[in-house]
Amino acid sequence: MSNSAPHRLVVIGGDAAGMSAASQARRAKSPGELEIVAFERGHFTSYSACGIPYWVGGDVPDRDDLIARTPQEHRARDIDLRLRTEVTEIDVPGRRVRARDVDSGAESWTPYDRLVIATGARPVRPDIPGIGARGVHGVQTLDDGQALIDTLARARGRRAVVVGAGYIGVEMAEALVNRGFEVTVVNRGREPMSTLDPDMGRLVHRAMEGLGIRMVNDAEVTALRADAEGRVSAVVTGDAEFPADVVVLGIGVRPETSLARAAGLPLGEHGGLLTDDHMRVRGHEDVWAGGDCVEVLDLVSGRERYVPLGTHANKHGQIIGTNVTGGDAVFPGVVGTAVSKVCDLEIARTGLREKDATRAGLSYETVTIESTSRAGYYPGAAPLTVKMLAERLSGRLLGVQIVGGEGAAKRVDIAAVALTAAMTVRRMTTLDLGYAPPFSPVWDPVLVAARKAAQKVAG
Amino acid sequence: MSNSAPHRLVVIGGDAAGMSAASQARRAKSPGELEIVAFERGHFTSYSACGIPYWVGGDVPDRDDLIARTPQEHRARDIDLRLRTEVTEIDVPGRRVRARDVDSGAESWTPYDRLVIATGARPVRPDIPGIGARGVHGVQTLDDGQALIDTLARARGRRAVVVGAGYIGVEMAEALVNRGFEVTVVNRGREPMSTLDPDMGRLVHRAMEGLGIRMVNDAEVTALRADAEGRVSAVVTGDAEFPADVVVLGIGVRPETSLARAAGLPLGEHGGLLTDDHMRVRGHEDVWAGGDCVEVLDLVSGRERYVPLGTHANKHGQIIGTNVTGGDAVFPGVVGTAVSKVCDLEIARTGLREKDATRAGLSYETVTIESTSRAGYYPGAAPLTVKMLAERLSGRLLGVQIVGGEGAAKRVDIAAVALTAAMTVRRMTTLDLGYAPPFSPVWDPVLVAARKAAQKVAG
Repeated sequence: MSNSAPHRLVVIGGDAAGMSAASQARRAKSPGELEIVAFERGHFTSYSACGIPYWVGGDVPDRDDLIARTPQEHRARDIDLRLRTEVTEIDVPGRRVRARDVDSGAESWTPYDRLVIATGARPVRPDIPGIGARGVHGVQTLDDGQALIDTLARARGRRAVVVGAGYIGVEMAEALVNRGFEVTVVNRGREPMSTLDPDMGRLVHRAMEGLGIRMVNDAEVTALRADAEGRVSAVVTGDAEFPADVVVLGIGVRPETSLARAAGLPLGEHGGLLTDDHMRVRGHEDVWAGGDCVEVLDLVSGRERYVPLGTHANKHGQIIGTNVTGGDAVFPGVVGTAVSKVCDLEIARTGLREKDATRAGLSYETVTIESTSRAGYYPGAAPLTVKMLAERLSGRLLGVQIVGGEGAAKRVDIAAVALTAAMTVRRMTTLDLGYAPPFSPVWDPVLVAARKAAQKVAG
Repeated sequence: MSNSAPHRLVVIGGDAAGMSAASQARRAKSPGELEIVAFERGHFTSYSACGIPYWVGGDVPDRDDLIARTPQEHRARDIDLRLRTEVTEIDVPGRRVRARDVDSGAESWTPYDRLVIATGARPVRPDIPGIGARGVHGVQTLDDGQALIDTLARARGRRAVVVGAGYIGVEMAEALVNRGFEVTVVNRGREPMSTLDPDMGRLVHRAMEGLGIRMVNDAEVTALRADAEGRVSAVVTGDAEFPADVVVLGIGVRPETSLARAAGLPLGEHGGLLTDDHMRVRGHEDVWAGGDCVEVLDLVSGRERYVPLGTHANKHGQIIGTNVTGGDAVFPGVVGTAVSKVCDLEIARTGLREKDATRAGLSYETVTIESTSRAGYYPGAAPLTVKMLAERLSGRLLGVQIVGGEGAAKRVDIAAVALTAAMTVRRMTTLDLGYAPPFSPVWDPVLVAARKAAQKVAG
């Protein structure tokens, strides 16, 4: 490159983190100052993977509704986006990446001045007999979602089995019920939603049964059976067999860091890239990473965690786009907030579960309270349950889980901000939260939990 | 009193603050340790005044639904509750109060060891001709609410005028629409909801018009007209006259501190009692006060404010009940959070408005953003507007106002906790808030506002 050539930013991965970084960099630097090349091996960019269950279930009518920004829109903003192009090697010392055209197989090297790795996650596919049968689907990408919808339309019967009962598993189970399937969820854990403590997961279990979903806990899938034509016909566990016309895998994702690993970049204990708080890969001046391929600092435990969520990926992208163009933006870390719903039941968590607190060596108290989403006398007041963890001596808030009717889930944001500020439960008892009968009892349920927790840590 | 007699706690006022204090004190001390006498001049105890508009409007079917704890329930817990008994004098040096039986007129002195003043608020009644006409109603107490409901049932026509457009005025306007009245709201300010900046109040104005409410701003009521039988017939402003079969006064309340003033207790510039952070009246070891008769510290501006809300009254009562019995509970102050709704429009505020920030001598920036309550593609996503104020140099959050559809109002709690923690808008940009398509766009509207504010304060 001559001195007059623009600097080149190369982005690997065209979804939330990668394209947010590219867009933010483009806002900061003109095409004359910075060339931006983005490689994406699939057909789509900048889409909401979190929306796939609602598309499959029919709440969201069209695939394109999930696309925040199309390839054409990115190109119109002078981002050289190369779809169906897979990066196969990162040469860090040589500052270049090798990419292969998925259709032609042609490979070539592209030099970079700065690199953004946003390779995302790959769904866990258990290594069991029959996993390759037709009718077995992940729901990680829009292509996956379309393939599943096609299978559902062609399915010979109406029996669906979902493997896994985390967010995706639970949301997909509801989507399949909405599609008219008889749904069985096979779950390794004691209760669904292992991101909650089991006592709170139990409430989700009941709501799923209320939807007519058969919930099978403590069950390990050992094989899938297929018929003579190679179509999946059953899910086999240690002691049972569940007939299936379609199988959805919702057993989580792992960081897609095979390229990074091969390039010798630093990975953490969860297999994600390790970055500093500017999202720069540790020890590498010109390499940034964000989204589902990185580990993030958990501000409550002080440890690295793997939290693949679109909301973090978008923030990472913005921060990277700012920093690669000379700005100064920081991602301090997460507190572990997540919300979801199954039917009318809202599910939320933030901070540490009991097992996280134990693992972090913390001594803690827990309280669980029952309250309502609105003043008890106001129409539509729905029951909700709040569980709160606080550190025994300091009284510091450690975590909150909420399960309940409409208005339950977003209350977890109160705790998310309190965790960020390292607040004690005692301080939380007098938080000035919004009160009016349509929105809350005069004591917000989070305050009720904080009061009870404050008594317990003090006592 | 002999040494063996129990200590006596006297409580003036039987609503939220007073009876919460009494109940909490009773939890801490047995009747053998502490005698508790509570005076209440009305017929009811521990009710939700905030619920009155919903009772009048028909959402809440029955008056008794608004009563959290009846006199009988308090008495069953060994609280000597004296209804229809008005305290007429506090003798602080003599540690006694004089009370009068409202029905018989008999007066007597009751000594106390510790005193709780929870005399609440009185509605502002403008001193104008005709204010005493029949059919003119406040909505401060359950008795007021019942009287209004009786008037509505007997009214000769269907024209209602609400004077004032704060929370109560707006809520009552909707209640009267629900009762089948043609409603005009006469408001002194530029826009309804003067607890918001006028640009945000404008959004409420539009929603009220959408309900068919006639909104008359910048109008001062100068007189009420009555017919020959003394029934209200019209509301007169400087330049117009509005026919009325019923008039509801919603022009706010003032602290009811005439007893305290006569007793020489310290009052602030808003006329409320001044306490320390344990809710002890300043300079008086054995006198506590809480609820709508006190001023509270605003943690954002550092000044005393008058914020008569049930949620504070309940907290004050708990704290007083703890402290009068030897415990140690603190009320650090408020940040000024309030939520409300008119029809489907949710309204929320916390912290400082522009004029508060100016009055506090702060240099600030404001941003206003439009977003949605859920992911844009998710069914039921409703528009919402967030206005944010931040201090210019420090970047500290100063205030947030939110107006929008379902899910708008309680988002203000995010800002309420951030204000409590004195967070900067920059720190807020990476808050780990709950995200899933049914609950939020991938960038929560509060985060979008924080990003824009952070750019502005930095720039």
